[in-house]
Amino acid sequence: MAQPILLDQGVQLAFELVGIFAFAVSGALMAIRKDFDVVGIVLLAGITAHAGGVARDVIIGAIPPVAFTHLGYFLMPVAAAAVTFFAHRAFERLTTAVLVFDAAGLGFFCVAGTLKALAYGLSPLPATALGVLTGVGGGLLRDMIAREIPALVRPDTELYAVPAVAGVLAVVGLWELGYRGPWIAAAAAAFIFVFRLVAMARHWHAPTAWRRRRG
Amino acid sequence: MAQPILLDQGVQLAFELVGIFAFAVSGALMAIRKDFDVVGIVLLAGITAHAGGVARDVIIGAIPPVAFTHLGYFLMPVAAAAVTFFAHRAFERLTTAVLVFDAAGLGFFCVAGTLKALAYGLSPLPATALGVLTGVGGGLLRDMIAREIPALVRPDTELYAVPAVAGVLAVVGLWELGYRGPWIAAAAAAFIFVFRLVAMARHWHAPTAWRRRRG
Amino acid sequence: MAQPILLDQGVQLAFELVGIFAFAVSGALMAIRKDFDVVGIVLLAGITAHAGGVARDVIIGAIPPVAFTHLGYFLMPVAAAAVTFFAHRAFERLTTAVLVFDAAGLGFFCVAGTLKALAYGLSPLPATALGVLTGVGGGLLRDMIAREIPALVRPDTELYAVPAVAGVLAVVGLWELGYRGPWIAAAAAAFIFVFRLVAMARHWHAPTAWRRRRG
Repeated sequence: MAQPILLDQGVQLAFELVGIFAFAVSGALMAIRKDFDVVGIVLLAGITAHAGGVARDVIIGAIPPVAFTHLGYFLMPVAAAAVTFFAHRAFERLTTAVLVFDAAGLGFFCVAGTLKALAYGLSPLPATALGVLTGVGGGLLRDMIAREIPALVRPDTELYAVPAVAGVLAVVGLWELGYRGPWIAAAAAAFIFVFRLVAMARHWHAPTAWRRRRG
Repeated sequence: MAQPILLDQGVQLAFELVGIFAFAVSGALMAIRKDFDVVGIVLLAGITAHAGGVARDVIIGAIPPVAFTHLGYFLMPVAAAAVTFFAHRAFERLTTAVLVFDAAGLGFFCVAGTLKALAYGLSPLPATALGVLTGVGGGLLRDMIAREIPALVRPDTELYAVPAVAGVLAVVGLWELGYRGPWIAAAAAAFIFVFRLVAMARHWHAPTAWRRRRG
Repeated sequence: MAQPILLDQGVQLAFELVGIFAFAVSGALMAIRKDFDVVGIVLLAGITAHAGGVARDVIIGAIPPVAFTHLGYFLMPVAAAAVTFFAHRAFERLTTAVLVFDAAGLGFFCVAGTLKALAYGLSPLPATALGVLTGVGGGLLRDMIAREIPALVRPDTELYAVPAVAGVLAVVGLWELGYRGPWIAAAAAAFIFVFRLVAMARHWHAPTAWRRRRG
């Protein structure tokens, strides 16, 4: 995520830190719900915020991963864990706010991850997969450590990966057609963000397997 | 898996795609049994098919991993997930067929993974471990995400890793003795395949710990 | 862990092998408690011993990871699994001994991991995180595969990560001030070891979230 993909480096950094904060809060809240101790709270905040990006960087060869080289990235989950440690009741009441931040982070990270994968030479479709992995990987690992069915795959959670896939497919499609400016990236991130919010508001769910009998 | 290890590149590609398909179907079926939504079905198909190979490539430094550079590799799990989405009842009836395909994939990927690790300069024993990881890693992660005791380690599943270890040990032993031709690789993959099928037919199980009292 | 960080290469190797053995035994014992078969016992021994170090090496770009290049490292978990396979009842009675070995491994690996990360150019705080990851990552993955709440984050286990964080923060602080000799490393490893033992003896626990109601 070193290259500027939004209109302005300052704007980009603000988005990144908001996204990291939201992901980290979701990890810390999960740890608190599971009665993890303070070590678990910090650990799950950091893993939720950074596991997707670290996996992406290891796979494309961007070593060391940006989460280990950018001090703001590194410290943000610690700060989010500290705030959540004391303010978790407020955050639980502010579920909607956390989900809105999370949607912003999802849109931003999926697009930024896809563009970084393209910049490292991956083909469009693998770049799409890595971009989505950047956005959803941390939450997947969070739920695995907390021994929950991953929210990412549960039929009773609103669309999460589907907006991400749609947005990054648009980005790589336009990239292939030669449209690569920062406005494209910003628009795609905004599209994912809005799509996710609408999916939550309208309770849109992804289908389960065709003609599956529920037991 | 770029270098030809079987007699013919076309034969090799066919084996690879059959193995990826079988692994992906086993992931998609697990997702459907767990009532995951369509996102989870595609995700678990892709992870089961490719996690072992991606881990191997990251460990030996073959960046980016072949799963992200070869379009056929990349698309096969998506196709397998799509077929399974509609045809899962048929696949459930065809359990034996899926297991036979899976055994073919196991034999092929363990041998190909071992040879790739040797080609990247690893010593024989670590290459053995990485080869087996290539074959079994995806299924292990599949079961972790689905919150199942990994089939790989359950005493009530028939031998799975044992044929793989035996086959790749034979490959590295012969490699060390100077026998490195494609026939060796093909014979070892066939050995793993047949050993696994016989283990299923005869219900061979690996032992649990010596003098373990069951509670 | 290639560079000598303790006073003597022989002493260092002995520490490393003791730590790997202790971690591997804890993995093998977990597998036996869960009634995994012999494949699961070897697998969980190896993963517990090496997953943290492999993750660190992949993240800093030390490819292939030392676990795959050093034969003693590679074989130790296999030996530990073999011993535990037969002697698990003795080890269960020797819980304290295993925990003492584990504490020695924790101290050694956290410090060695931090110094290796610094040697590969990471900044002090990320090096701290990677050092702790080296020490605790294997146990975290062990518990995830065994479908246990990770001991690392449970409020009813005595301090484990806290001594590690304290010790490696001391190492990087002194490193920044220019004190980088082998005595520093040895003292920090000993500090982590003793802190962990005292935490167990005195039943020190990390706090859970502030004003958390237990349900």
